[in-house]
Amino acid sequence: MTSGPSFLLAARQCEIAELEDLARTGELVGAIGRLVHALQRERGLSNVFLSSHGSRFAGQRLQQVAECRLAEQQVRAQFDHLDTASSQARNGARLFSRVAVVLHGLDGLAQLRDRVASQQLSTREATVAYVKLIAGLLAVVFEAADSATDPAISRALVAMFNFMQGKEFAGQERAFGAGAFATGAIDAAGQQQWRHLVESQQGCFQVFCDFADAEVLRVDQASRDPAVLAEVERLRRIACGGRPGLLDANLSASWYELLTRRIDAMRSVEDVLALHLRHLCEQRIAQARGELRDQRAMLDALASGALDPGPEGTAAYGPHLERSMLGLLQEQACRLQAMGDELDAVRATLNERKAVERAKGLLMAHRQMSEDEAYKALRQMAMNQNRRLVDVAEAVLALAEVLPGRGR
Amino acid sequence: MTSGPSFLLAARQCEIAELEDLARTGELVGAIGRLVHALQRERGLSNVFLSSHGSRFAGQRLQQVAECRLAEQQVRAQFDHLDTASSQARNGARLFSRVAVVLHGLDGLAQLRDRVASQQLSTREATVAYVKLIAGLLAVVFEAADSATDPAISRALVAMFNFMQGKEFAGQERAFGAGAFATGAIDAAGQQQWRHLVESQQGCFQVFCDFADAEVLRVDQASRDPAVLAEVERLRRIACGGRPGLLDANLSASWYELLTRRIDAMRSVEDVLALHLRHLCEQRIAQARGELRDQRAMLDALASGALDPGPEGTAAYGPHLERSMLGLLQEQACRLQAMGDELDAVRATLNERKAVERAKGLLMAHRQMSEDEAYKALRQMAMNQNRRLVDVAEAVLALAEVLPGRGR
Repeated sequence: MTSGPSFLLAARQCEIAELEDLARTGELVGAIGRLVHALQRERGLSNVFLSSHGSRFAGQRLQQVAECRLAEQQVRAQFDHLDTASSQARNGARLFSRVAVVLHGLDGLAQLRDRVASQQLSTREATVAYVKLIAGLLAVVFEAADSATDPAISRALVAMFNFMQGKEFAGQERAFGAGAFATGAIDAAGQQQWRHLVESQQGCFQVFCDFADAEVLRVDQASRDPAVLAEVERLRRIACGGRPGLLDANLSASWYELLTRRIDAMRSVEDVLALHLRHLCEQRIAQARGELRDQRAMLDALASGALDPGPEGTAAYGPHLERSMLGLLQEQACRLQAMGDELDAVRATLNERKAVERAKGLLMAHRQMSEDEAYKALRQMAMNQNRRLVDVAEAVLALAEVLPGRGR
Repeated sequence: MTSGPSFLLAARQCEIAELEDLARTGELVGAIGRLVHALQRERGLSNVFLSSHGSRFAGQRLQQVAECRLAEQQVRAQFDHLDTASSQARNGARLFSRVAVVLHGLDGLAQLRDRVASQQLSTREATVAYVKLIAGLLAVVFEAADSATDPAISRALVAMFNFMQGKEFAGQERAFGAGAFATGAIDAAGQQQWRHLVESQQGCFQVFCDFADAEVLRVDQASRDPAVLAEVERLRRIACGGRPGLLDANLSASWYELLTRRIDAMRSVEDVLALHLRHLCEQRIAQARGELRDQRAMLDALASGALDPGPEGTAAYGPHLERSMLGLLQEQACRLQAMGDELDAVRATLNERKAVERAKGLLMAHRQMSEDEAYKALRQMAMNQNRRLVDVAEAVLALAEVLPGRGR
């Protein structure tokens, strides 16, 4: 019959299994970061290729497609590994469901590229397709962060997700700004949308700063070239700082090049984030294994000590050993509770994104909107009311009770 | 290479594995309910046996011990099953850690009974030992409720946990009241403690009513004998309604008998709760398996359709099949999100208990209190300030930031 000590060890083994799961997820997140970066570059090159009617970046685009394929293979290999590794993983249903969406998107990439090559798509259509695929990849990272059971690893994943999401907003800003400068004019709605992309980026990087490890923050700081940042701010001010009106079309190329330098610098921070995450997982696994070993040794000592008849003949353990066993149990309970508390605190930061997702779902169900339309409607409300997206989302959710046709 | 459809199916299989896990947990919770009831009776009989210096209930106590042993065997068998079934279970570390505490308590039962039989313990010491063991068993049920991934099953488990916890407060009220009447007097502190037990019960049963299925609520309503309830209220008023003072010691036996009738009636409701939980699990598993079958058939049809060259030669699927696949993906994503939202809402009710546990842990760490002392300190604060336990706990947690020596 199973004993208390064996469950104490089983609890520890569960922790180790969860940590090993997280280490695998960490590898996947790293591979996704590389693929997202490759897709962001491909999106940018495709945009310029399409808007120049095929005259610019034709060669670079093809080269980038080849790089993308390599990154894609690595992500697919990680997916394969995920599938065979665990059908019982925490949060498995949601993670796998997100992976299915990504694979569907990746399967459609060849067709998307053919249509770009033959210039059958507008710049806008191509952008939407790439944005969607990247959003699907980031959703996988989000589920990974949301399912982590170790607070330190959860912090690292939250920092990583927010950095990746912020970088993607920067990528969208690159495309949006390049388009705006290229057309030679910007209207008030365009300025608002641009500002929104800047604010969304800042929100993400703020969370990143709150959760990232000190060493990662140092690398991030070092990656910020002051000259580049100052020039980015100057061009933003030219486009969005004054009244709507004409823009110098010649600035399009230098804007594009500047943002590309900034985004490539971010990529190097992502590598450090991924490395930090891997070290953290290795360290936590080694620590948990060591603790398991110590605990097993202590339980063995307790068990062999219990073979001596104690001062109280009827007791399974003598009073001294009894106290040691109780100590082990209490220590484990306290540790797990402290971990749970810290985890709840870290996860709370993920709830903002969840509120936006929920509000989107609500609009899709009640207003028969597509996902894209629902997001735009929320963003429009946020811009009109000059409020944060999450505040608008929460207002929409608060209204949910009075909307008709809502199931219980 | 793994495909999107295979991950869609893997996501569904994850759900089924989680549901099967929950069904096993449901069986365990049922067995725990039976053991808790048997221990509650044994505690009551032991109390009367000890306070009558061995003259009353000696035979009944031994009979009850035998019944308890049977119930204990069933719980241990369920624990064995749990251990072998899954080392990757969601929340496994916490659940297993709780189980280790329970097994440690069960291993000490033989010694506890010997000391009761030889009257080496006070009534109070015996009560504390049984209360602790039962609290450990209820903590296992709490972890089960907290780890459920299906909203309907989570609701049923939350209802069940609160019913069991309410029943345990009723058991403690039985013991406290019997003792108070037997001593022939009650002071103000005793009255306050009694009222606290009544309020705690009512809080639990309120949550039970909010979450239980309509059929279970009907059974619960039918189990409430109005004559018994009226008499319980009358005796409560005699003891706690007026000023502190003398009590009729003759009322001890009838109080004990009344509460026993009420608690035994609750036991029958618990059986219905367990049955309802089992049916729910079976139904959800059958449903998920059916959906998996349908989904697989639809994906097979899509795949065979895709073998025909579609109107667009380069597409993996034709436009019609493409829409079906997207529909499947979106439907799954929406369903999982709706489930996640509902689950968050159900789980929020468990957070009150978590706040109390956290506040207790804080007091233990900063005031060098034992768990029992920490709980009493919280309860005393609640009574002094005439506030709910959870409000006091949250006030303590809010103070945590300014307490010295708190790690980050």
